[in-house]
Amino acid sequence: MALNHFIQEMLPAIENEMEFVLTMAKGSGLEEFHYMLAYHLGWEGEGAGPEARGKRLRPLLLLLSSAAAGADWRRALPAAAAVELIHNFSLIHDDIEDNSALRRGRPTLWMRWGIPQAINAGDAMFTLAYLTILRLAESVSLQVAFQAGRILQETCLHLTQGQYLDISYEARGDLTLEAYWPMVGGKTAALLAACTRIGALAAEAEPTTCESYRLFGWYLGLAFQSQDDLLGIWGEAAATGKSAESDLLSGKKSLPVLYGLGQKGLFARRWMQGLISVEEVAGMARQLELEGARDYTIARADVLTKKAIKALDQAQPQGEAGEALRALASLLLERQG
Amino acid sequence: MALNHFIQEMLPAIENEMEFVLTMAKGSGLEEFHYMLAYHLGWEGEGAGPEARGKRLRPLLLLLSSAAAGADWRRALPAAAAVELIHNFSLIHDDIEDNSALRRGRPTLWMRWGIPQAINAGDAMFTLAYLTILRLAESVSLQVAFQAGRILQETCLHLTQGQYLDISYEARGDLTLEAYWPMVGGKTAALLAACTRIGALAAEAEPTTCESYRLFGWYLGLAFQSQDDLLGIWGEAAATGKSAESDLLSGKKSLPVLYGLGQKGLFARRWMQGLISVEEVAGMARQLELEGARDYTIARADVLTKKAIKALDQAQPQGEAGEALRALASLLLERQG
Repeated sequence: MALNHFIQEMLPAIENEMEFVLTMAKGSGLEEFHYMLAYHLGWEGEGAGPEARGKRLRPLLLLLSSAAAGADWRRALPAAAAVELIHNFSLIHDDIEDNSALRRGRPTLWMRWGIPQAINAGDAMFTLAYLTILRLAESVSLQVAFQAGRILQETCLHLTQGQYLDISYEARGDLTLEAYWPMVGGKTAALLAACTRIGALAAEAEPTTCESYRLFGWYLGLAFQSQDDLLGIWGEAAATGKSAESDLLSGKKSLPVLYGLGQKGLFARRWMQGLISVEEVAGMARQLELEGARDYTIARADVLTKKAIKALDQAQPQGEAGEALRALASLLLERQG
Repeated sequence: MALNHFIQEMLPAIENEMEFVLTMAKGSGLEEFHYMLAYHLGWEGEGAGPEARGKRLRPLLLLLSSAAAGADWRRALPAAAAVELIHNFSLIHDDIEDNSALRRGRPTLWMRWGIPQAINAGDAMFTLAYLTILRLAESVSLQVAFQAGRILQETCLHLTQGQYLDISYEARGDLTLEAYWPMVGGKTAALLAACTRIGALAAEAEPTTCESYRLFGWYLGLAFQSQDDLLGIWGEAAATGKSAESDLLSGKKSLPVLYGLGQKGLFARRWMQGLISVEEVAGMARQLELEGARDYTIARADVLTKKAIKALDQAQPQGEAGEALRALASLLLERQG
């Protein structure tokens, strides 16, 4: 299958590029500083390895977009490394902000080195991401490298806006559906849109093509998140026996929950009284479904998926990479749990 | 006096530029997100005003360097706003990392909005700094704007390296003088060097001239910090009656303290036993002086000041702005307490 072939070629190249960038953080007396970053990226320490690294979805999406827009994907490697470093910078800081002790089965950076070092290590990874994307100037024109850097900055501003909303929602009981889209737009869709857009840009595609790629990434992000929220309550792990996996337990303001709160019915009344227990999960999921949240979320995910596919069609992805990109989109959008 | 005249012209222009950039953080539902940033910059909330803003030393240094290198300083305003935003991003995160409740007499951002929002607001200010410096491309060449962006990134990496060392030193008792320079190089001198260098670069000065400006800022930062450390123990506020102002109380690993630790004498033995009390401050300051730390620090500050002045001479600053830059350097280096 073409997608797997691309992934097998691209993954080691992405890791190499990131390793190269991280050498900039090295220096006398800075061994542990570098080690923290390498630990978070899944290269060092207990549990290091592919399982600890995540799927590297964002750089793969960027490289496939660049190849499907007609370029040699190797030219876009600095940008691919940059988006993965941005993703990981935000994970390091999110883990502190969300008080998360584990990530991919390993202690988070702040759990191992404390909050001060973790904030600072996140800042370093943020900086390294930009130092990486500027290296695009070695493989594409200065104009394109400059524009890619600006897009990544605008994306990060969007990320922090989404994160602000997410944190501020914790203390609020008056949320409705309208609160959802700006939050997930910033937290999830903005970076995926930057991946597909920068990929096309690095291929020096026409502005209208770049815009189609951007929209593809944007709707892909929104559709993916809607479906993730659906599976978080009614997916196999959440619904069948393993109630401990349900998003209903963590108090997450997901799309079905916000829909349910807007109904101001039984679900909303119980939700406002405090955290749901494991014993209540199945009943609350059923109640939420009765109130229409499941159908609503399925319908929204469906509309967003169609928009993503339409934008990808308009981008006219070329060749084997285009096929692989379609396959990746299908994988992301057709999960069953 | 020429310096005051420049400051009076430049300060409102710097504030305007930063206010313009911060409008990028605005949006529906994001009023408080913008407010947090404006609060930290001293524009909003209780105690807002010039006192809450700090001296805006870094943008002034950048603009004066640019003017002294022959340009209209207004062309460099986006870079001036950027270095001030970088400085303030690092203050927001430092205040969390150092557990500081107050800054310039007002509650710190994390004290008012909690650690999660403060980490995120710092990230937003970091991003805005880069979005600002890229705006240089509207007033100077794309090459220069690109290079300025890269210098700022390299500077931030240096900042995080210095901060890593500072945090890691807290838990260590085996420090010597060698530990000092990489820490203050990263934490203080790197950003001042970026200011003078980017100022000259925005004036499209020759590379050798830019390098002289860079060295001027670098040694200015090291000299300033050495003198700050001196005043922190033997300055008027710290030494005469107001022992509560002394750096000896906070456990700060300043230059005199590291010198004293290296002597392994009475001072070092007491220091290793735990925090110094207010009653002990005067005696410990005397002991540290007896062991040679005061003379050593004065001598180092003197050598570094001479190096800063020599680099400034080599940069050949021009006209009234050149005079003003010399006056600013003198003000910073000849403080008495």
